[in-house]
Amino acid sequence: MNNPLRIGIAGLGTVGAATVGLLQTHANLLAARAGRPITITAVTARDPDKDRPFNKDGLKFLANPMELATNDNVDCVVELIGGESGIAKDLVRSALAHGKHLVTANKALIARHGFELAEIAEEQGVTLAFEAAVAGGIPVVKALREGLSGNQISAVYGILNGTCNFILTNMMKTGRSFDVVLKEAQDKGYAEADPTFDVDGIDTAHKLAILASIAFGTAPQIGSVTTEGIRHITLEDLKYAAELDFAIKLLGSATMTEQGIVQGVYPYLVPNSSPLAHVDDVLNAVSIHGDMVGSAFLEGPGAGGNATASSVVADIMDVAKGTRYFPLGIPAESLSQERSQAKAKECCYYLRTSTNDEVGVLADITRLCHGQNISVDIMTQPRHTPGEPAQLVFTTHPTTAEAITAAGAAINALPAVITQPQIIRIMS
Amino acid sequence: MNNPLRIGIAGLGTVGAATVGLLQTHANLLAARAGRPITITAVTARDPDKDRPFNKDGLKFLANPMELATNDNVDCVVELIGGESGIAKDLVRSALAHGKHLVTANKALIARHGFELAEIAEEQGVTLAFEAAVAGGIPVVKALREGLSGNQISAVYGILNGTCNFILTNMMKTGRSFDVVLKEAQDKGYAEADPTFDVDGIDTAHKLAILASIAFGTAPQIGSVTTEGIRHITLEDLKYAAELDFAIKLLGSATMTEQGIVQGVYPYLVPNSSPLAHVDDVLNAVSIHGDMVGSAFLEGPGAGGNATASSVVADIMDVAKGTRYFPLGIPAESLSQERSQAKAKECCYYLRTSTNDEVGVLADITRLCHGQNISVDIMTQPRHTPGEPAQLVFTTHPTTAEAITAAGAAINALPAVITQPQIIRIMS
Repeated sequence: MNNPLRIGIAGLGTVGAATVGLLQTHANLLAARAGRPITITAVTARDPDKDRPFNKDGLKFLANPMELATNDNVDCVVELIGGESGIAKDLVRSALAHGKHLVTANKALIARHGFELAEIAEEQGVTLAFEAAVAGGIPVVKALREGLSGNQISAVYGILNGTCNFILTNMMKTGRSFDVVLKEAQDKGYAEADPTFDVDGIDTAHKLAILASIAFGTAPQIGSVTTEGIRHITLEDLKYAAELDFAIKLLGSATMTEQGIVQGVYPYLVPNSSPLAHVDDVLNAVSIHGDMVGSAFLEGPGAGGNATASSVVADIMDVAKGTRYFPLGIPAESLSQERSQAKAKECCYYLRTSTNDEVGVLADITRLCHGQNISVDIMTQPRHTPGEPAQLVFTTHPTTAEAITAAGAAINALPAVITQPQIIRIMS
Repeated sequence: MNNPLRIGIAGLGTVGAATVGLLQTHANLLAARAGRPITITAVTARDPDKDRPFNKDGLKFLANPMELATNDNVDCVVELIGGESGIAKDLVRSALAHGKHLVTANKALIARHGFELAEIAEEQGVTLAFEAAVAGGIPVVKALREGLSGNQISAVYGILNGTCNFILTNMMKTGRSFDVVLKEAQDKGYAEADPTFDVDGIDTAHKLAILASIAFGTAPQIGSVTTEGIRHITLEDLKYAAELDFAIKLLGSATMTEQGIVQGVYPYLVPNSSPLAHVDDVLNAVSIHGDMVGSAFLEGPGAGGNATASSVVADIMDVAKGTRYFPLGIPAESLSQERSQAKAKECCYYLRTSTNDEVGVLADITRLCHGQNISVDIMTQPRHTPGEPAQLVFTTHPTTAEAITAAGAAINALPAVITQPQIIRIMS
């Protein structure tokens, strides 16, 4: 076991560069912990000549990432190119098929093709590892796959996208709108020029599908994740939520119900009594409920080159030590392929609208809720100038998505109602 | 790999019984995840005839725990007897020496003898695993040893004793004294009849020594852990701390300084802005700082049969999968044996005393602090009946333990001072 583990790294962007830097600066520490040296024998990058924040001396640049899959001097390929198809997928498939261990930070790839890739890895008897694909530096895949492997998991949920959390936190902190804070996040490099993946919840859905797969023994089912983003969340909502003792967070949530697994990504009002309400800025956090442990909560940086490299290297260290596991927790052939038809459980909702200052509007709205069997919990109509539009905010007792949607549509159709009701789930 | 892993369990108390129950009820799930069945081939208990909360049919009771160490039908011994010496130590040593894998929840044993036991395990090429020894159901040993193995760790600290946390939380919640809440904890089974190990910080010190060993690559040095308990914390302190926006928590803390490692267990005022301040009742939590990850925070149940069994079984699952690691993170022969002489860094302090209502007392106290180069941050003297004793509470800017102790002694010597100053560290 004292022969070096030979690594080939594809992609030298933020995470790739941080990974190379880590492997270089901590070489002795890593060798002591793994019981053998870890050496980088080949790398690939779109622009090999670019200046990099690490020592390029002796690093062998290959012309094409695909060469890593067949390179005799590479035991373990580290895919940090990204994207659910194209070169990333081709490289991962080919590397596994050629008996190379494979470490990746590619959440879209695992969420879409995790089952097929796990099958190849198991056939070949090699590792497929993706700690860095979920929640950046938090070792949550390992916690679920190993640390809590004695548990029947009933739920896993959390804040899985640092960009959305930065935006929601900073809207509230600075009293600015979604658009302004999104722009700031883009300027800081927290959000892409096209923010769709982040703010529409797709990135969270990818990560959730991976966690749910390991938690529940199913193939990742990204198509089963109902997804709603945060573009419609206003500063007003954040402020009203705070007055009601809630923070608003984008949560990915997978729950085992009697009817099957329910996976969803939605903004939620999170009670301030929950640790999730205090996970701010680009931090991520995951709560895992199991029948033996009760619940465990993990928090840490959800993105960033160094934090993600921490997880990439943890996976590499497992490869170096010869650690073996089923990539998705159980053998791929045993993963359930059944697509759950289960509906989300009832939950409480927050609803905000503005109305003309007319007699009987409150009564109308209450009547429409009652018509959908919705029971109002707290209702608040902040003081306003008589004759001017009034804001109306209320929360409900548990009800179905269908009922609250129908009630929202009926309320919207009232002549006195000015703005379409904003409807947000409340975490219980 | 499809042959069963054969387990022998010594000790069927709360954790032992929960472990047997888990292995029985989740047998299929565990076999799927491990890739092989896990069977219990032998158990030992002080009273084999006692009723147990699991199915005893077919369980083979041996007369003497030591028989497990040499039993040909046992691949992995699970030691759940407890105690740092005696039969527990003899069994663990013998089992490892006979080439059995060894899983234990015994924090005292690992804190005292972890180095020697790791040496034997490594010589024999077997596993020595003790996830359940630290922070109950939280997979923190695995997080440190594997999930964050790419990091140079700079600090690890947290709430590691559920009993103390229950007492401090419930004193504050219910407005009762230490003694009364301790009695309640004993009645609930959260505290032993002799609570010394818990309330004097010894249990926390054991767990801290284990975490520090893995974090910093040193042999566990329980003798280097300065330890102070919570017996002297009063309801008044908890209330004044809350007014200043702090909770009081017993923290174990290990920090790498330029002079070496500093390990200590002390009650701390924890700012409410820290997640640790909101870890209540019997929950535990650990914060880990590393150069790549920044910081990661893990929270979960610190005790209880099921939560501890969750960690015991996670270790068993690793054995079943053939996972290999150095028990203390690096080879035992590489662990540093040097005893750190480093002194704790300066920190801020809280000081409370009561004084006679005399002119000049405040000036005297300020002068005595100044004499020790201590700069007062916030001082508060709550309103009191003129002529009656006055409470005086202040916090300091960072200073040394020597300086605050000297200042406390000098203040105590003032004629107007009635109660010996209460001095508590403030977490920065």
